[in-house]
Order: sequence, then structure tokens, then C-alpha cells
Amino acid sequence: MKLPDSLIKLIEHFQSLPGVGPRSAERLAFFILKEDTQKIQNFIKSISEVKENLRFCSICHNIAEDELCKVCSDPLRNNNKLCVVENILNLVAIEKTGYDGIYHVLGGVLNPIHGVNPENLNIDSLLSRLQNNSYEEIELIMATNPTMEGESTALFIKRRIEQLGLKNIKTTRIGRGIPTGGDLEFADKATIDNALQGRREY
Amino acid sequence: MKLPDSLIKLIEHFQSLPGVGPRSAERLAFFILKEDTQKIQNFIKSISEVKENLRFCSICHNIAEDELCKVCSDPLRNNNKLCVVENILNLVAIEKTGYDGIYHVLGGVLNPIHGVNPENLNIDSLLSRLQNNSYEEIELIMATNPTMEGESTALFIKRRIEQLGLKNIKTTRIGRGIPTGGDLEFADKATIDNALQGRREY
Repeated sequence: MKLPDSLIKLIEHFQSLPGVGPRSAERLAFFILKEDTQKIQNFIKSISEVKENLRFCSICHNIAEDELCKVCSDPLRNNNKLCVVENILNLVAIEKTGYDGIYHVLGGVLNPIHGVNPENLNIDSLLSRLQNNSYEEIELIMATNPTMEGESTALFIKRRIEQLGLKNIKTTRIGRGIPTGGDLEFADKATIDNALQGRREY
Repeated sequence: MKLPDSLIKLIEHFQSLPGVGPRSAERLAFFILKEDTQKIQNFIKSISEVKENLRFCSICHNIAEDELCKVCSDPLRNNNKLCVVENILNLVAIEKTGYDGIYHVLGGVLNPIHGVNPENLNIDSLLSRLQNNSYEEIELIMATNPTMEGESTALFIKRRIEQLGLKNIKTTRIGRGIPTGGDLEFADKATIDNALQGRREY
């Protein structure tokens, strides 16, 4: 006896999802098989709704229910501050602070080993936005994560801006240091080094 | 800006799947959002097909496309050998060896700490099968895994059979020892101990 074809197909589908290996895929497929039919129908409906109702903002690549996202379509937003983030979850995290500027979602970070090159990210659309901006001066806040990939992505964008000779753009990088509630004792050398370099008058 | 309700709902759905934490659930939901619509439709179709076409065998709880599974509906199977397995994947593994008997799928192992008690497993239906069996003698092959939970589940079933005073049942346990291709050097004490106890004439 082999597993039925439909089940094998479902296992393969699960395996194509990010972070799901062969064993987890099997486990998920069997879970679907056992689970209450009504719950699975709700799950399917939820997937369909996301695919039908949501898309990406044509300006900043944030999640959107219309052509433009809620940030880009808000006239009260400060268009002189443009925050570059890796992904939408990072954008949502920054929104919680009350930041009043606009965004540009890269959709990832440069990682040539894993096949992520500049053309795979929303970098060209960022450069076009900067070229077409009609404001006096724009602050470009590089808020990619302080990882090796995040740093090199930020640096790549900074160099491209310089190469294109874009004017009126002030590039900044998010502060690095000890996180709130953290302890110097447990911080690594690079973090402490950055905290010292980024010290402010008190 | 918050995440749209439909996306939050999808994240919650993913989080209710086994082995999917909050971060993986977010990642999966964003993957669904980004992925090609046709591929997601195929995924949905695959889930529906499994729910519509597959069920569990009313005798042995194996996967089935009809009332009975392919094993239980096969007249050539040896009904005097009944192999008790934890789950369908274990059944599929045993099928590959050419085993000609029938099965009973428990649907898990006893694990009271995680809320898996005898009533959550297909133990009562196994005992009913044994009580109603019309054959001369039946060999009950306990093929639960040689883990703590697998052992205690096998032992629990053995004791229940004794308590019920079921006759003509010979209970056996799958052999334990060094796996084929294995090396004594890397085997743990319990495995070597079991290999010695389970030695056969040569």
C-alpha cells in the first residue's frame, strides 16, 4: 500500500512552503486529513480572501487593499522622511512608534549566495522615487536590520544614490546600541562598540 | 498602520497548524500573499481533494478512499497477523517490507502529560476487533516505536488484553537491536543491551 496520490500531492505542496521540510510537510498533510472539515474550509477561505483582497502598494510595496497603501494615501504623512525597510513586518514595527514619514519596502536583503541580487529587490523603484521627488530635501532613513545582509544592502543603496548623483538626499542609518531593557553584561562586542560610537549628549 | 484583518486571520490559521509558531505563521502568510495566484489555487485545490476523497478505514483507521482501506479490503491478506502501529506513516514503512498481515492504527501513543490518554487513541476499537475475531489464533504484533511512549502504549494494550481475558491471542513485540548498516561503536547502551537480549541462532 502506498499513500494516495492526492495526499502525496498535498505533502509536496506543503513542502514548497518556506521553512517546511519533508517531515513537517507529512505532519501537516495528515493534520489536514484529520482536522474538522469546517475548520479546513475556513482555512481555505482565509487563503482565498488574502489572495483576492490584498496586493502591494504601487509606490512603496507595502501591503495594500487598493492601488495605494494606507500610508501612501494619507495626506498627513511627512513626505520628506522616507524610511527604507526590509519587509512589511518591519514597517508594522516602526508604525507602532508613531513615525509620521513614508516608507519603501525592499522585499528582502541582498544575499547573492541565496540568489538575492539587486534586481530581486525593490531598489530600482526606490531610486526612481528619489529621482522624481519634488521636495526640497528628503531624509532617507536606512532601517534595514543591523545584520551583515542588512548592512550591505543599506551600503549598496547609498552607493547607488551617490553614483546617480541624486541631490537633496540626506541618508541616515537607524541607531545601534543596547536595546531597552538590555544588559551590557550580555551584549556582544559589536553592539557595545556601536553603543559607544552612537553615544549622545545627556 | 496595522496588518489587514484578512492577513491577521490567515496568520492565526497557520499558527493553529502543528509545529507552526507565530514567526513561521507570519512568514507563511506573507509567502501566500506574494506567491503566484495559480500556484496558491493549486494548493487550495489539493487541500480540498484530500478532504473530499480521503477518510479513515472503519476497521483499522488506515487511510482509505472507501469505507475500507486497501489492506482491509484485500482478501489475500493474512487475517491471523495483526500489526499495531502508531500512525499511517509507520504502516506505510512496514508495507514496504512485504508484510502480508493486517493492521490497526492507534493514531498516536499514550502521553498523559500532553493530554493523550487511552480514550484519545484507537485502543477500544482494537480490543473490540480482538474480542470479535473468529480465527483460531491471532498474532498481535506490537509495532509501536521503541520510545518511552511507544513502550508504555504497547504495555498498556497488553495489560488490557489480559484484563479482558481475551483468548487465542499471542502478543509479540518488534525486534530491537543495531539497525542494518549501524555500528556498535555509536549505539547507545540500551540498544546494545536489547541487541544482546534479542540475539538469534546463527
